[in-house]
Amino acid sequence: MARTEISTMGEFGLIKHLTKDLKPLQPSTKKAVGDDCAVMSFGAKRVLMTTDMLLEGIHFNLEYVPLKHLGYKAAVVNFSDIYAMNGTPTQITVGLGISKRFSVEDIEALYDGIKLACERYNVDLVGGDTCASMTGLTISITCLGVANEKDIVYRNGAKINDLICVSGNLGTAYMGLQLLERERLANAEQPDFAGKEYLLERQLKPEARRDILESLRKAGVKPTAMMDVSDGLSSELLHICSQSNVGCCIYEDKLPIDYEAAALAEEMNLNIVTCALNGGEDYELLFTCSLDDYEKLIPVEDLYIIGHITKPEYGCNLIGRNGEELPLKAQGWNAFEN
Amino acid sequence: MARTEISTMGEFGLIKHLTKDLKPLQPSTKKAVGDDCAVMSFGAKRVLMTTDMLLEGIHFNLEYVPLKHLGYKAAVVNFSDIYAMNGTPTQITVGLGISKRFSVEDIEALYDGIKLACERYNVDLVGGDTCASMTGLTISITCLGVANEKDIVYRNGAKINDLICVSGNLGTAYMGLQLLERERLANAEQPDFAGKEYLLERQLKPEARRDILESLRKAGVKPTAMMDVSDGLSSELLHICSQSNVGCCIYEDKLPIDYEAAALAEEMNLNIVTCALNGGEDYELLFTCSLDDYEKLIPVEDLYIIGHITKPEYGCNLIGRNGEELPLKAQGWNAFEN
Repeated sequence: MARTEISTMGEFGLIKHLTKDLKPLQPSTKKAVGDDCAVMSFGAKRVLMTTDMLLEGIHFNLEYVPLKHLGYKAAVVNFSDIYAMNGTPTQITVGLGISKRFSVEDIEALYDGIKLACERYNVDLVGGDTCASMTGLTISITCLGVANEKDIVYRNGAKINDLICVSGNLGTAYMGLQLLERERLANAEQPDFAGKEYLLERQLKPEARRDILESLRKAGVKPTAMMDVSDGLSSELLHICSQSNVGCCIYEDKLPIDYEAAALAEEMNLNIVTCALNGGEDYELLFTCSLDDYEKLIPVEDLYIIGHITKPEYGCNLIGRNGEELPLKAQGWNAFEN
Repeated sequence: MARTEISTMGEFGLIKHLTKDLKPLQPSTKKAVGDDCAVMSFGAKRVLMTTDMLLEGIHFNLEYVPLKHLGYKAAVVNFSDIYAMNGTPTQITVGLGISKRFSVEDIEALYDGIKLACERYNVDLVGGDTCASMTGLTISITCLGVANEKDIVYRNGAKINDLICVSGNLGTAYMGLQLLERERLANAEQPDFAGKEYLLERQLKPEARRDILESLRKAGVKPTAMMDVSDGLSSELLHICSQSNVGCCIYEDKLPIDYEAAALAEEMNLNIVTCALNGGEDYELLFTCSLDDYEKLIPVEDLYIIGHITKPEYGCNLIGRNGEELPLKAQGWNAFEN
């Protein structure tokens, strides 16, 4: 593969090179890259804004994450935050810190992933900042989105007796990471991922659940509170309950678990329920909705009712398979500890 | 000074701690920190968006930059980009990557600077992402702003015979950096900055020229093209000329130079004109406007006419004190070299 040193292009050359084929997709984009700011026109819509930073050695390991997948994921996790408010992502800006280890081709691959995600989700890349870094790769993406005021779903709207629902499955992205890590440590020339492609995809190339929002809209269900599952189900549920001033009760046997993930967990001596509660990075939608919507939810595909909202005094609990009550804890990965 | 390990608070604790006293200043801010996204309502206004990433060892050296100043500057440079479109900054999000070297007090100091800048410029901090870093400090700020469509000034509107104007002075921030670097290398216990406080302030705590835009509005002048001077006058002028498809002619003896900066340049054997052309980080406003506005510009304080726009065939040139013509070059700091 060709290797062009970034120094031969310079910062402006690199940005121009990376953004030359971008075409605005959103009517609200009035001016994209090439000025001090992007310019958007949103009419009477609400504007949503979210930002995520990804750092090499913390959020990703380039030994097993291809740059194109990394770019795709970096964009999608931001879209997921906008969907988690029941909004539509519309524009992103991309900040990159790049060390000399990376060539223009490397950064192109990263951008290809970002652009692919933008195309698939109908989002415009409207600007950014690209600079040299002393140490590895840093990616910071900020995403704007729109929503009608009445459609926005916050974290603080859960009501007593509401149903708790989650899309897809949980703990799968975490098991994908365990698999990648195991093969890396085994240092095999040809890592053996046969039959486990789905786990890898959940970790390396997650999707945001726009389809679930569409299904809910069609079914006539508006969630009362919603988040995406990025830090793990326990952590997110505790956020919803604390902000809504309620408690919750979820059932171990209702948690959606992928069978490949369960098999690998067994093989690696991990408790798949713990992985589902605390694994993180699933980017599924977790929401609450009125008990009155129960009938409407049944036909929605890939959606699971895992429990219900309670009085705050009850606390936040998991009911185990034998009926035992276990308090939920935010064991979400605390990167500031060791 | 107390030192609280960030690990004792965790990510959510730290964010809560840092943002607990934030009160929205902008009527357009409907929901600030605490959900997946911030929510803004802009009515019929245009929305501007800009982002900047600052990396330790590249953009700042904590040996001589106090964290509070760093936070202030990181915010102000984004505001400056919004002003450079003739807009008003309204919201920022802050992404931080923090290594274990930093304590909660350190990050508080950084946030204090960001919050002070927000207060002074009437901007809301509406969200962000805080995460651990393996290596030093990374700051990524994204800023939104608003403007009426008719007021926005792009880079591509400069017309032949337009005047070229710049606010404040040029090369001063660069000389401030040279001074800091000299004292650091001298390793003096008490660095000698007496009489040079202004140079330090220009480097460590720059301001965005909101006041110049107000003066222009009062004077009834709308620039035809505008940028802020972050990479150096030459580099910015070349951007305006290439995007407007024009040439330019500026005069060495018209460049606004601070006398302290000139004296230090002399002392350090640097050419102050080169510093003014290529130094960068001045965050002054550079703009073009119609020759018809000449009379209106005269009474505007702290504003200097440095040349005029020409036909594209003429190229982009500096006329030296002896009448010699020198082509402008974008010698803006290319951090990907060396």
